[in-house]
Amino acid sequence: MSGELGPETAVHGCMQAVREFGSKVILVGDPEVIHDLLYRFPIDSDHCDVAESFEVIGMNEMPARAVRSKKNASVMVAARMVKEGRAVGFFSPGNTGATMAAALWEMGRIKGVERPAIATQIPREEGVTVLMDSGANVDCKAEWLVQFGIMGATFSREILGITKPRVGLLSNGEESKKGDFVTLAAHRELLRTSLNFVGNIEGRDIYGGERSVDVLVCDGFIGNIVLKATEGLARTIFELMKKEIHKTALGRTGAMMLRPTFQMIKDRMDYAEYGGAPLLGVQGNCIIGHGSSNAKAFKNAVRAVEEFGRRKLDTHLTNDIRDMS
Amino acid sequence: MSGELGPETAVHGCMQAVREFGSKVILVGDPEVIHDLLYRFPIDSDHCDVAESFEVIGMNEMPARAVRSKKNASVMVAARMVKEGRAVGFFSPGNTGATMAAALWEMGRIKGVERPAIATQIPREEGVTVLMDSGANVDCKAEWLVQFGIMGATFSREILGITKPRVGLLSNGEESKKGDFVTLAAHRELLRTSLNFVGNIEGRDIYGGERSVDVLVCDGFIGNIVLKATEGLARTIFELMKKEIHKTALGRTGAMMLRPTFQMIKDRMDYAEYGGAPLLGVQGNCIIGHGSSNAKAFKNAVRAVEEFGRRKLDTHLTNDIRDMS
Repeated sequence: MSGELGPETAVHGCMQAVREFGSKVILVGDPEVIHDLLYRFPIDSDHCDVAESFEVIGMNEMPARAVRSKKNASVMVAARMVKEGRAVGFFSPGNTGATMAAALWEMGRIKGVERPAIATQIPREEGVTVLMDSGANVDCKAEWLVQFGIMGATFSREILGITKPRVGLLSNGEESKKGDFVTLAAHRELLRTSLNFVGNIEGRDIYGGERSVDVLVCDGFIGNIVLKATEGLARTIFELMKKEIHKTALGRTGAMMLRPTFQMIKDRMDYAEYGGAPLLGVQGNCIIGHGSSNAKAFKNAVRAVEEFGRRKLDTHLTNDIRDMS
Repeated sequence: MSGELGPETAVHGCMQAVREFGSKVILVGDPEVIHDLLYRFPIDSDHCDVAESFEVIGMNEMPARAVRSKKNASVMVAARMVKEGRAVGFFSPGNTGATMAAALWEMGRIKGVERPAIATQIPREEGVTVLMDSGANVDCKAEWLVQFGIMGATFSREILGITKPRVGLLSNGEESKKGDFVTLAAHRELLRTSLNFVGNIEGRDIYGGERSVDVLVCDGFIGNIVLKATEGLARTIFELMKKEIHKTALGRTGAMMLRPTFQMIKDRMDYAEYGGAPLLGVQGNCIIGHGSSNAKAFKNAVRAVEEFGRRKLDTHLTNDIRDMS
């Protein structure tokens, strides 16, 4: 019921997952609205269930207050179904803070995890970098950062198939003596783990280059700012191009010829490809979507949640946190 | 004598400044090397002096140790000439830490300034955002961030001609309650100043949009990471395009037609346009260059230093820090 594009987009995307991947989904929200939309999709009813919820947490509500006062909001009902074992995980394109709060409140943390963190998958020229944390925690302690590295490596190994993920620490220089107080402490502690820790990584190496890593560790405050800054810059570059290109006939012709190239680059940077960003460290699976998640994002999120369940991601996280923390 | 492209580039750029702007420069370094290069440029000797220095601080030397042990390194001699009133300011494309240390050690801080900070000018679609701090200080206190805002506003007003610069605070959300501990405290204190403080700015608004600001305040750790991340992404986008474009004849033709557009976008993002990033808060003027500064960067840096001197930037900084801190 949340997300900027409304329930039609959600239903549409989920039904695509049912058709393409044989997924089984439970749609949480106003049954009347949902059934009205489902009517258009002739699918096996075995693959789609509806769970009733009449409350929605708005994008601008304060998360902590909202989850306390709206116990039956759609995101809370979804999280509870995971806790009760009726679903393997849930996806929400709504209020990020409320989604995290619902997952924490209802599903709880994995034993030993100090702070769950958001794992964003950043496409590189070859492969993907998992940014941990992308925004769940500000003012992190060094030990939390170490756990972000452990959980990111588990995700990279179990879901992305990287045998020995390279783990890096985002800092203002490659040298081990560069960094703020918390980063310096995290560096020392990461060296003591059995992770494949390769040291500090600079901002310029996030998107490619020889020093790129499979897992990049940082405070959620910085992670959020870096992600939004780079998204903003990419958007600005494409808009500038569009504008310049349309100024001349030659430009328009050139642009037409380059359309496949532009499309390829846009596809690469399309976050809908991943559905959303998993919250790692909670019991069960939770994927946090962009507010503007489209049908493709819903489809891929459903597939991702099912895959996390099939590969027992949370069991692996539990074991790795127990063995390495 | 420092910088990745060597003294030839430096001399070439400085002589361009002499010719185009009538600048007066002092070249600091090995006199024999410099005179050998100067020989090629028939200019009025009144506009160019040489100051002797036989030591250079390398890119990988530890700044604090280097400035203590190499008192006569070129960067130290240059800073000392500013202190002694023989130059209005200096530019160095060498070791950033050593340049800062030389400026602090020889020229000293402006009275009342807790920490000088690096001001990077980020081109927006319309205008420029001054990022304070871009990397001089990690682990900042809230009061330092407030001073970064004050000094950035002085720079924007006196050098960029913005009457009432909009000052924003980089954070993980627009709401005043978003931010890490230091950012939250700085937010409260910025509200108490007479600055035109517009509140928190998200990463996505750095490069344009309605919420863009003239001065953007952040910790130097974050500033460094954000700048390098966006530079890295821009480079990646252009490289991807180049590669894709050359795969097909159609792509190559399209690219040829779009060459003016690509060039325009590259020009906009060309840091050489500004020469380098001023270190604000020291007595006199200091501009820190990219290690790979080309002749254009040298030329523009010379012009910028002279302009800072002509407009009495450090006097304005002194007054604003006294009145607003």
